[in-house]
Amino acid sequence: MIERHLARLRLRHEISESDVALIRGAIAEVREIPAGRTLVEAGERLRVSTLVLDGLLCRYKDMKDGQRQIAELHVPGDFADLHSYTLKRLDHSILTLTPCRVAVVPHVELARITKASERLAYVYWFSTNLDAAIHREWVLSLGRRNALARMAALFCELQARLQVVALADQTGFALPLNQTQLAECLGLTSVHVNRVLKELRTRDLVTFRGGHVSIRDLAGLQRVAEFDPGYLYLERQPAD
Amino acid sequence: MIERHLARLRLRHEISESDVALIRGAIAEVREIPAGRTLVEAGERLRVSTLVLDGLLCRYKDMKDGQRQIAELHVPGDFADLHSYTLKRLDHSILTLTPCRVAVVPHVELARITKASERLAYVYWFSTNLDAAIHREWVLSLGRRNALARMAALFCELQARLQVVALADQTGFALPLNQTQLAECLGLTSVHVNRVLKELRTRDLVTFRGGHVSIRDLAGLQRVAEFDPGYLYLERQPAD
Repeated sequence: MIERHLARLRLRHEISESDVALIRGAIAEVREIPAGRTLVEAGERLRVSTLVLDGLLCRYKDMKDGQRQIAELHVPGDFADLHSYTLKRLDHSILTLTPCRVAVVPHVELARITKASERLAYVYWFSTNLDAAIHREWVLSLGRRNALARMAALFCELQARLQVVALADQTGFALPLNQTQLAECLGLTSVHVNRVLKELRTRDLVTFRGGHVSIRDLAGLQRVAEFDPGYLYLERQPAD
Repeated sequence: MIERHLARLRLRHEISESDVALIRGAIAEVREIPAGRTLVEAGERLRVSTLVLDGLLCRYKDMKDGQRQIAELHVPGDFADLHSYTLKRLDHSILTLTPCRVAVVPHVELARITKASERLAYVYWFSTNLDAAIHREWVLSLGRRNALARMAALFCELQARLQVVALADQTGFALPLNQTQLAECLGLTSVHVNRVLKELRTRDLVTFRGGHVSIRDLAGLQRVAEFDPGYLYLERQPAD
């Protein structure tokens, strides 16, 4: 059940069988949640964190006029709100973008397993810092990439992250989002997203249709995005 | 020497005298660094983290054409790169924006003190998650706030963060940055920053001159920014 989570962890760190047992033992329940459900409201007191087994979730913030900005997408294998283990309430909300299956991990269990295993404490701390690194790349995208490069960078990021959990290959991946949701990731309007998708298709780099991203030219896409996967820390981490 | 760091920690968490002794004991050296010095290069292998005693630092990423995006500003009392304790190399560089005095804390010492004190481990984990919360607010700013609200939000954030370490009050704070550096925070051009500063002054909200931010109307500024300090977690955190 947590194979994708383990694949994600084991790409970067050595995870022992006893650590795996601790993680499995920390799961209180598994929930199936429909699309479009707000799982966590900004500001509410939290006592559990959510591990994504299947589906896509996002963290978002809204302006008063209803404009929405998505701050991160979460894919299977991710904790969507491990940050709440230390923050106790979140500064943003968490929404299911597709039907999701999630594992609920109470904070008391996180406390227990990170006390039992220094390694797990370190690995989960790393994991939240990896989220921060993804946030920084989005800051760069929104601040300095043009709309075309922004969209290309998002596709490159998702390709790399989904490949870790065997949900993408070099030719593409499922992405059951609509253009409004893409616009909310990219700080653009849906109309602008539509135009950019058309240009990426015309340039024969990538086609987004029917909830699927078909990559025609990954190297070309990465070039347009100035994509450097360094911020995703996709390699085995040094032991010390 | 670490009073500002302690003020920052103690606002949110109970820090015992033995924790303070651990933190003091973890500092290997104090360095004085001129302005404009790159302290950490993206990608280099790191074995120390940097605690800001005096001055302003930033984390930044550059595009290939030289466009720079600052991802976060660091003020006295902050760790500028505690993330490197788990990430071991950073996806961004760290630059002194003013002359800085910093304390160097080796990762082996961070390992030692976070093993010795579960509380410190938790508090420093929280601290990196707070950085992530600040990143998310900047994602919102860059994605959805207009230029005026973006600048207002940055001033509100800095006022709140600097007040924690007694370097700001309701009437303003020192901010020895130029308009180019502000532009690099806000994803704008310097020309645009100049125009926005003029509008904030005309509206009698805030004046930025000679490296000082004079706040004429904090409530008005916060209204323009739609500033909600919730993302800065300025209150005592729940114990459990």
